[in-house]
Amino acid sequence: MEMNIALLPGDGIGPEVIEQTVKVVKAVGKKFGHNMTFKEAVVGAAAIDATGNPYPDETHEVCLQADAVLFGAIGDPKYDNDPKAKVRPEQGLLAMRKKLGLFSNVRPTFTFPSLIHKSPLKKERIEGTDLVFLRELTGGIYFGEPRGRNEQGTKAFDTNVYTKEEITRLARMGFEFAQKRRKLLTCVDKANVLATSRLWRETVQDLEPEYPDVKVEYEFVDAVAMRLIQWPKAYDVLITENLFGDILTDEASVISGSMGLMPSASLGTDVKLFEPIHGSYPQAAGKDIANPLATVLSAAMMFEYAFDLKEEAKAITDVVNLSLAEGVVTEDIAEESKPSKTSEVGDWLAEQIL
Amino acid sequence: MEMNIALLPGDGIGPEVIEQTVKVVKAVGKKFGHNMTFKEAVVGAAAIDATGNPYPDETHEVCLQADAVLFGAIGDPKYDNDPKAKVRPEQGLLAMRKKLGLFSNVRPTFTFPSLIHKSPLKKERIEGTDLVFLRELTGGIYFGEPRGRNEQGTKAFDTNVYTKEEITRLARMGFEFAQKRRKLLTCVDKANVLATSRLWRETVQDLEPEYPDVKVEYEFVDAVAMRLIQWPKAYDVLITENLFGDILTDEASVISGSMGLMPSASLGTDVKLFEPIHGSYPQAAGKDIANPLATVLSAAMMFEYAFDLKEEAKAITDVVNLSLAEGVVTEDIAEESKPSKTSEVGDWLAEQIL
Ligand SMILES: CC(C)[C@H](C(=O)O)[C@@H](O)C(=O)O
Ligand SMILES: CC(C)[C@H](C(=O)O)[C@@H](O)C(=O)O
Repeated sequence: MEMNIALLPGDGIGPEVIEQTVKVVKAVGKKFGHNMTFKEAVVGAAAIDATGNPYPDETHEVCLQADAVLFGAIGDPKYDNDPKAKVRPEQGLLAMRKKLGLFSNVRPTFTFPSLIHKSPLKKERIEGTDLVFLRELTGGIYFGEPRGRNEQGTKAFDTNVYTKEEITRLARMGFEFAQKRRKLLTCVDKANVLATSRLWRETVQDLEPEYPDVKVEYEFVDAVAMRLIQWPKAYDVLITENLFGDILTDEASVISGSMGLMPSASLGTDVKLFEPIHGSYPQAAGKDIANPLATVLSAAMMFEYAFDLKEEAKAITDVVNLSLAEGVVTEDIAEESKPSKTSEVGDWLAEQIL
Repeated sequence: MEMNIALLPGDGIGPEVIEQTVKVVKAVGKKFGHNMTFKEAVVGAAAIDATGNPYPDETHEVCLQADAVLFGAIGDPKYDNDPKAKVRPEQGLLAMRKKLGLFSNVRPTFTFPSLIHKSPLKKERIEGTDLVFLRELTGGIYFGEPRGRNEQGTKAFDTNVYTKEEITRLARMGFEFAQKRRKLLTCVDKANVLATSRLWRETVQDLEPEYPDVKVEYEFVDAVAMRLIQWPKAYDVLITENLFGDILTDEASVISGSMGLMPSASLGTDVKLFEPIHGSYPQAAGKDIANPLATVLSAAMMFEYAFDLKEEAKAITDVVNLSLAEGVVTEDIAEESKPSKTSEVGDWLAEQIL
């Protein structure tokens, strides 16, 4: 297969983890006979430094022309500590999602047997958890207008807004995910308070008859915030709006004890983007200590979701499991074994595939 | 002291737990020589059944004339299962908060040594946690206008809105709480996305110089959703807007393993209301099995916050600790001991005080 892959390393540890992932992806290409071209582009603080814009038009073009985008991370403390900064790296992230139409952020939470003891939760609570969030990513209060201040600056406002259409496309994806999994869909909203949530609930209810094999549950966001800790294995597929998804997917990411390993996909009508859920971790940047596994696993998602190549995806998850079993891992998760460097993990994974 | 106490039992197990609490409060009154009058009023589903209105004017009057309100719980499944219901019990809750000006919901999370093993978190993570949320309760997206649908019903919207004044009064309360505690205040927002959050952050920053003894931290809501599970003891006092508070206080409530024991206070300019954080738990209603301790501990908060009577508050927390130590508790937390009935726990607590 011909594959055009855009690489957006971004900030902090982004470049390092993308570099390892490219090694692994190339190894898969070689083994399975795919023809790959890679094109790199800047985003985030790196892009502000280079062009003044956190998501430059050239980067957008590169993404549009690619079959899949591999993205590292965004964020640099030099912007966090400056409340007066006019452009912030995060704006690049939001612009990228919106312009590429990446309406669904797919974030799985699952456990690795060898890492369960790292979970803040007790083993019996977390063991066997296997859920996936579909977070709406291009609507809601992140983009709704009007937003801003009154003239005197004494009052601020944001608008949460959703159309039936936006909800429908995300919900359909949720139903389809559920059909391929354990057939349970949970719609997370705050329908007892919000008009937008009532439209979410109504829209999902209207779709139910089209997916008779899927059981649908409706839960309030505050209840899910509790049950995710109390009994995460009760969930299969969860769909929710942008802001609730931001909070709950982060909550879900830490319960497995392997946040450094959790991948994600952002899917749109045309473009598909893959990224680790961890951030740019600036303290570790350039030290060759960052854990590349979440990004490598994001590449596995890429083979599955962007190219429908399950075997290739499995080849990657298999070597990741092997690296965990054999202790070829970075210092954040190394225990009995001597920690490996970021680059050593990448090299090892690529070798195992070939 | 003269004390006018309004009793709003509400729905489900509300009446039972309020009944036990009144026994305890009366015992405290007798022991410390306070003159108490109690006035009961309906709210929630009980009020809809009686008057058609979940927060009737007569109930509002009773609250306004009281020095403190003891509230049970609201909610009845017969309304949850009817999406077409015009009046819902929760509307009574929101109307009550708004009309009584209860702008600050004070929700502590702490642990009971004898119950720590019930926490979903590992002992070393949760032990020693002692934090308190101040959730803004009468503003934000819960009440902002416009809210609703477009004419065709294909688009829904809600408005999040905050004034500097609303933020200031909540933040000042947060600073004052912190001064009496470990002097750490965390402002929880989403300032990288929301205009309202930026006003929150700015307003709190402006207040910092007035409270030089308090250290202030600013964290994004998604980060707090993670850190609450990973390292809850890092927090002391947290302030946040209505919706974030709804989600995070519920998340915080389950980490201690003693959700059935967690009290809360809702404070306003005039009226002060006290309630358990658990819900109406309709499955248990009328069975004399509900745990009354959260409501009893809410009464301890009442003595402290409404009447500034710390000794009386301590008398209550002391007997609650005694009931845990001696196993005079309901079936949800009874272990070695034979479970007691709701009413037996109430009687026992009152006796111990006298
Ligand atoms: C950086 C921020 C704008 C972003 C979001 O809120 O979406 C991040 O938290 C995420 O979840 O990717
Ligand atoms: C019932 C509901 C409207 C309410 C809220 O969201 O405030 C509840 O969840 C709470 O936290 O007291």
